[in-house]
Amino acid sequence: MAMVCLSDFEAYAKKYLPKIAWDYFAAGADDCTTRDENILAYKRIRFRPRMLRDVSVMDIRTKILGSEISFPVGIAPTGFHQLAWPDGEKSTARAARAMDTCYIASTYSTCTLEEISAAAPGGLRWFQLYIHRNRAASQQLVQRAEALGFQGLVLTADLPYTGKRRDDVRNGFRLPPHMKVKNLERAFEVCKMSPLDPSVTWNDIYWLRSLTRLPIIIKGILTREDAELAVKHGVQGIIVSNHGGRQLDEVPATIDALVEVVEAVGGRVEVYVDGGIRKGSDVLKALALGAKCVFIGRPALWGLAYKGEEGLQDVLRILQDEFRLSMALAGCASVSEIGQHLVQFSRL
Amino acid sequence: MAMVCLSDFEAYAKKYLPKIAWDYFAAGADDCTTRDENILAYKRIRFRPRMLRDVSVMDIRTKILGSEISFPVGIAPTGFHQLAWPDGEKSTARAARAMDTCYIASTYSTCTLEEISAAAPGGLRWFQLYIHRNRAASQQLVQRAEALGFQGLVLTADLPYTGKRRDDVRNGFRLPPHMKVKNLERAFEVCKMSPLDPSVTWNDIYWLRSLTRLPIIIKGILTREDAELAVKHGVQGIIVSNHGGRQLDEVPATIDALVEVVEAVGGRVEVYVDGGIRKGSDVLKALALGAKCVFIGRPALWGLAYKGEEGLQDVLRILQDEFRLSMALAGCASVSEIGQHLVQFSRL
Amino acid sequence: MAMVCLSDFEAYAKKYLPKIAWDYFAAGADDCTTRDENILAYKRIRFRPRMLRDVSVMDIRTKILGSEISFPVGIAPTGFHQLAWPDGEKSTARAARAMDTCYIASTYSTCTLEEISAAAPGGLRWFQLYIHRNRAASQQLVQRAEALGFQGLVLTADLPYTGKRRDDVRNGFRLPPHMKVKNLERAFEVCKMSPLDPSVTWNDIYWLRSLTRLPIIIKGILTREDAELAVKHGVQGIIVSNHGGRQLDEVPATIDALVEVVEAVGGRVEVYVDGGIRKGSDVLKALALGAKCVFIGRPALWGLAYKGEEGLQDVLRILQDEFRLSMALAGCASVSEIGQHLVQFSRL
Amino acid sequence: MAMVCLSDFEAYAKKYLPKIAWDYFAAGADDCTTRDENILAYKRIRFRPRMLRDVSVMDIRTKILGSEISFPVGIAPTGFHQLAWPDGEKSTARAARAMDTCYIASTYSTCTLEEISAAAPGGLRWFQLYIHRNRAASQQLVQRAEALGFQGLVLTADLPYTGKRRDDVRNGFRLPPHMKVKNLERAFEVCKMSPLDPSVTWNDIYWLRSLTRLPIIIKGILTREDAELAVKHGVQGIIVSNHGGRQLDEVPATIDALVEVVEAVGGRVEVYVDGGIRKGSDVLKALALGAKCVFIGRPALWGLAYKGEEGLQDVLRILQDEFRLSMALAGCASVSEIGQHLVQFSRL
Repeated sequence: MAMVCLSDFEAYAKKYLPKIAWDYFAAGADDCTTRDENILAYKRIRFRPRMLRDVSVMDIRTKILGSEISFPVGIAPTGFHQLAWPDGEKSTARAARAMDTCYIASTYSTCTLEEISAAAPGGLRWFQLYIHRNRAASQQLVQRAEALGFQGLVLTADLPYTGKRRDDVRNGFRLPPHMKVKNLERAFEVCKMSPLDPSVTWNDIYWLRSLTRLPIIIKGILTREDAELAVKHGVQGIIVSNHGGRQLDEVPATIDALVEVVEAVGGRVEVYVDGGIRKGSDVLKALALGAKCVFIGRPALWGLAYKGEEGLQDVLRILQDEFRLSMALAGCASVSEIGQHLVQFSRL
Repeated sequence: MAMVCLSDFEAYAKKYLPKIAWDYFAAGADDCTTRDENILAYKRIRFRPRMLRDVSVMDIRTKILGSEISFPVGIAPTGFHQLAWPDGEKSTARAARAMDTCYIASTYSTCTLEEISAAAPGGLRWFQLYIHRNRAASQQLVQRAEALGFQGLVLTADLPYTGKRRDDVRNGFRLPPHMKVKNLERAFEVCKMSPLDPSVTWNDIYWLRSLTRLPIIIKGILTREDAELAVKHGVQGIIVSNHGGRQLDEVPATIDALVEVVEAVGGRVEVYVDGGIRKGSDVLKALALGAKCVFIGRPALWGLAYKGEEGLQDVLRILQDEFRLSMALAGCASVSEIGQHLVQFSRL
Repeated sequence: MAMVCLSDFEAYAKKYLPKIAWDYFAAGADDCTTRDENILAYKRIRFRPRMLRDVSVMDIRTKILGSEISFPVGIAPTGFHQLAWPDGEKSTARAARAMDTCYIASTYSTCTLEEISAAAPGGLRWFQLYIHRNRAASQQLVQRAEALGFQGLVLTADLPYTGKRRDDVRNGFRLPPHMKVKNLERAFEVCKMSPLDPSVTWNDIYWLRSLTRLPIIIKGILTREDAELAVKHGVQGIIVSNHGGRQLDEVPATIDALVEVVEAVGGRVEVYVDGGIRKGSDVLKALALGAKCVFIGRPALWGLAYKGEEGLQDVLRILQDEFRLSMALAGCASVSEIGQHLVQFSRL
Repeated sequence: MAMVCLSDFEAYAKKYLPKIAWDYFAAGADDCTTRDENILAYKRIRFRPRMLRDVSVMDIRTKILGSEISFPVGIAPTGFHQLAWPDGEKSTARAARAMDTCYIASTYSTCTLEEISAAAPGGLRWFQLYIHRNRAASQQLVQRAEALGFQGLVLTADLPYTGKRRDDVRNGFRLPPHMKVKNLERAFEVCKMSPLDPSVTWNDIYWLRSLTRLPIIIKGILTREDAELAVKHGVQGIIVSNHGGRQLDEVPATIDALVEVVEAVGGRVEVYVDGGIRKGSDVLKALALGAKCVFIGRPALWGLAYKGEEGLQDVLRILQDEFRLSMALAGCASVSEIGQHLVQFSRL
């Protein structure tokens, strides 16, 4: 079977992953409306391509928070990579480094931060954090990440409680016994009373700031009001995200929310987006609407499920080729030429 | 089979109820457009969730006409509960009391008001009235309800004649011989020439007012003009309703009509809504758009069909959990924080 | 099988008519977009029903060009009724008279005007005319109709050539040998070179006017510009029609065009509409948007196919009952209370 | 099987062509959204037909760049006609001449320009050019075309690189060994490193102008900005095209882009459109929105696949008949009467 586009990897993963793992990765909250809208919303955006520009030399590199990456697609934080591939997050880290892009490692990794670092020394990595009731545990994680050379701290803001994912409830989803949320092993066990702290507020950004010199990126912002608060509280970046449609269902698609957030931020901090990216042209649309970079979640897991590190590289390479081609066909030879003039919202 | 969301109860009821009973409960008028629109309209509303608010302590209680209920979901008046469960409305009353919410008992109950009261003493109950040609019968019902401790009188305004529900016509629907519309037994028989009075007008509100000290809530209002008239004629509450899409087909979905009614009423009386509530997040949307409380019709019947009192409690508990979670994920710790800023209408 | 709504008659006709006849009646031009849009457009209109009005006494009678009919639904001109029922247009005439409404007999009838008149003496009938290349033949038809007591002359304006109905081409549709376009028998044969005159212009209204004292109604108008011309040329009525979607495909649904025509006409002449009426509530919508009366085409043929005169009466009786009920549920006790305030266009 | 409309030819071609050839002709880029939108967008346009105009004498001829054609439909440039019919582009040329219309021969023909010319001497033909890295090869092609009597030079602007057509990748599409891109045989081989020059810019229009006295038509323009540049750089015509949805996916449908381009051009040069034409009424819509003529791509190939030259004539004749009928039913007796007043965009 030829792996031509990301849907091919999705089909593979659906066929070969254990149902409980597939369901967990695929799950959306409630009716999965937002999960699906993330994809559909891209289809409502039309390009306004420009012709007869010299696109013989293409430059698709960009920078996020000062670090250069080979193209504006990174790996979003998702949990439990061992469900997709035995080496888990170690493979993810290797693939991201091989493709010269950024990997945001999740708190809920099945490898430790140390294992991830050791697997791909020198790779560009950020660490994703949930703030726990046990603040000491969170502090320890942040400081381990900084010490290990992670270059950004991503605070997930949209999970005071876990969304209702019906299939996970039906399946009684929990990690198989031989997998562990290793980063937290000593601090507390997963899957009992939630260790996450639902009392977190904007002031906790100041507490995080006091713990680390890493830039802080906040993930899960969907409104101009919260974007304004994020800037006001001193974050360095915002990831427009609805957690892949896994938290509150029937929030806007991220590409729709991006427009509002970018406008509110007005260039004061970098804005990224995740959710619904399935083609290189989706990346181009997100950049045209103001994202500095996008992050992929489920497609990365499909790549892992296909062939581990190699499969994820395949996914990234396809996105890279498609992104380069889309740019060229739209008349852009470098990322700096991408702008809002390239897109319009369809009447449909 | 795990009962995870309200659709599970619907599937159960469809499978296990006799076809004629299922069809009666499911029926909509004509093409069932409005019945289905009631649900679809909720899906066109998007949340604007706010992040990083302290949602560690959640308060979902509210008050309707001064009575506190455990969360803003009550039981709408529907007829013939014995078609769903042998104990009929007695089970409904017990479940509502157990869940600490309001039950609006229908004139077309298969238990008497006295039986309903005796089944769940002390529960918060309103009585739903159709005005009959035989006004003495209606007067007697109102006064029985007041004497039994019902705390509100709900006048249904949208049924001067019964809507055309094709399946009921095809099935020749009528109550099985062992069931009776017991509240009316002596006054007249059901299913002959309709006993309902199609000459009722707004002035009859004054007549009702003369019969009882109970607050009067009018049910079936869909326009600002009628909302204005309702307030002018001194009702204490309005239920925005299209009778579950069973009367005039192709009227607006209730959640759409709610916006117009709330605006016209301007806080002078409480406004409620029924129709199309299937998830806790639907409740949150209705409250964001100005409803003080919602009422569920068919889902309550599905709960009864599943396991009587216990099944209805399951339905209410699921809605309660989903509502609490939706509030938290939208950034609201108490009902008083819910407002119009939480929602927007989708372009689709 | 219970005949509960018009779709039941459609299903019957589709099952029992010869395919070639069903296809002919069902045919739309090209992709059948407009044929189907005629129906879909009604579904996009929402009622704004008013409650608590005295609807105990309902009056659904109306007048068209001064003649009273039992309710605002007449029979549109369609051809070849013998394809649906052996007695053909004689049955149609009898059913219309029995239901006390207006029947517009087509030039392309399979009975003569004399047979139609004799079948139902005293019935209200209009005659539909195509202007033929052989003007003498047209003149003779008009004068025969007037002499036989037809009370209106309906000029069809949208058929200079016949639309492309693919199924008719595939089927090689033509009348069976034992049926004839009897009104034209001596003048010319059907189904050779078209006898219709594609050079007809507005000035021919004056020519028609010179032939007869009958009121002239023009059928097939879809724009304000043509509505203005129709009034200017002295017609007494306009039927907004797209020929059931059988002529130019992808013109607007008639209920959408009605709004524009009614506005342009400003009450100077009566406006009617045909196409897409399938329920009593559709009639109510058309009247709310300014039609004085609607005409049904295919549903009348389905009624004939079901049981001839009796079947067509069933169809009309169902529409009548549904129309009366819709009026009552919308809060109107007589046709004069119907107005634009009753409807709104859905956002969908 | 009766060939009644263009879909019949499509069905035939799909059934009888080798899968790899069908897939190649049918292919769209990525998700094929734009390929399909090209067709759907026509369905959203509604006619405003005018009645009672004298349409007894119909004139559907028009002129493009001064040459008269029998009706405003030409043959768009598509490659590899021998995949559809053994005689390839020779048959296409004969059919176009027989129907008295314009054929734009592609650089990627499987016959030489000389063979095409010899097959149908005297036919109106334009030559479509890709500018190659080997500029001498392009120059030679342009000059051969001019010498052979081609009357226009069509520069394709939207293919600096080939779009990603998934089926072609899966099929490993390449020409069968016995077919050749004959026009380029000596200059270079197809299907290796792309010979097309992605560095082409607007200035190359001046270079082309220096090579030939033929009028230059630019193909692939979708925005007002590029339309303005085209006029400024001295082209004689613009073909609004998205390459049949085969290049950048999710650009607008051509009929939607046409409106914008026509407005920008303001009559300074002729504007044509290709993509999505499937019925004579589509042609009427394109002309109403300002196109001087349309070009068909895939339908021409289906005609060839059906019966070569004869099949393509069938396709053109059907379009011609449908176009004439649509004009008449819309109230236009000649092409000069077609204007924007004939159409409106549907709300859907």
